[in-house]
Amino acid sequence: MHPLVSLSIADFAAALASDAPAPGGGSASAAAGAAGAGLLSMVVRLTLGKEKYRDAWAGLETLLPVLDGHRARLLELVDEDTKAYDAIVAARKLPKESDAEKTARKKAIDDATVLATTVPMQTAFFAEQALRAAGTVGEKGNPNAASDAFVAALLLSTALEGALANVRINLGGIADPELKQGFAGDAADLAKKGAVSLETCRALARTRGLLA
Amino acid sequence: MHPLVSLSIADFAAALASDAPAPGGGSASAAAGAAGAGLLSMVVRLTLGKEKYRDAWAGLETLLPVLDGHRARLLELVDEDTKAYDAIVAARKLPKESDAEKTARKKAIDDATVLATTVPMQTAFFAEQALRAAGTVGEKGNPNAASDAFVAALLLSTALEGALANVRINLGGIADPELKQGFAGDAADLAKKGAVSLETCRALARTRGLLA
Repeated sequence: MHPLVSLSIADFAAALASDAPAPGGGSASAAAGAAGAGLLSMVVRLTLGKEKYRDAWAGLETLLPVLDGHRARLLELVDEDTKAYDAIVAARKLPKESDAEKTARKKAIDDATVLATTVPMQTAFFAEQALRAAGTVGEKGNPNAASDAFVAALLLSTALEGALANVRINLGGIADPELKQGFAGDAADLAKKGAVSLETCRALARTRGLLA
Repeated sequence: MHPLVSLSIADFAAALASDAPAPGGGSASAAAGAAGAGLLSMVVRLTLGKEKYRDAWAGLETLLPVLDGHRARLLELVDEDTKAYDAIVAARKLPKESDAEKTARKKAIDDATVLATTVPMQTAFFAEQALRAAGTVGEKGNPNAASDAFVAALLLSTALEGALANVRINLGGIADPELKQGFAGDAADLAKKGAVSLETCRALARTRGLLA
């Protein structure tokens, strides 16, 4: 079942706007990432088909299955993010009368919070991977699609930063200090790599007059 | 008819990824903007309902119809962007044998290019308007939705910058120098305002540990 990615663009935007806390920023980040990976695939397809850009084919054709795979995985994460949020809400509703119940409830909340952190971490991971490809696609791809490659980079950077904000908001709820530190370190690493890739794409966009 | 916003999230991402040049970055930018405006509406709704945040109500309730309106308009622009692109393609296919045909074709391409520039300019305009509200929503809104307000700001900034890249890529094709200069000036103005609003949201996200 993929209830969210089966919603229309208009209905998904309406679901975000509703007073239900999920779907929220985590699912929206993954959806932005899927759109960004999709746009990069388009730019590659508009290059591989054209004899004129033959010199670029070798550098781009191996990217296509990777980017299509990232799009598929990011779409799955749209739904996984909302499911993980719902699991925290369900754990919080567990009974807390007896000591045994309190212990079981605390463990359920801890486990659900760890899961709800691994989901946006995966969104951040795949968004960063695709963002790394955006520089190559922008540079070697069909120049008529230069603005599409740049929009893809912006979408993937938003997916990455948005997912990391969701990782970080959960860190306070993670009981295990080692796990918490590991997540924080991974988040910092992905953010740093993503910023470098985005800057490459911004520099290219500037030389093409797409950015002031 | 709204063919694109009726597509599911998964099918829209697949349509972006296909070897058809439209839908492309212009439609994807407008869709990101609609998701961003939607997320801001959610944060406002999660604040207005709660007695605990009563002090914030006055500053937020007037924003709700505005944000819902921006979301609706940005959704329309998803389809308008692709239609405007198709109109340029159609104009380029007009016959160009006789001098009269050549003149008519050039005028049709010029007109279609101006239209195809006004569409992302509108996307940029509404994204900037919503991004301006993101600071207030982030600051006064339900703090449990702080990451949602930040993701909204990222999505709206991407919509704005992505739409402006689409404006700028069309500028070279605009024959009227005054019109061209007007578009360039408006684009620079929106980019500047958007950067200021985004920085406000980033600063807030930093104080909340959502951003390193």
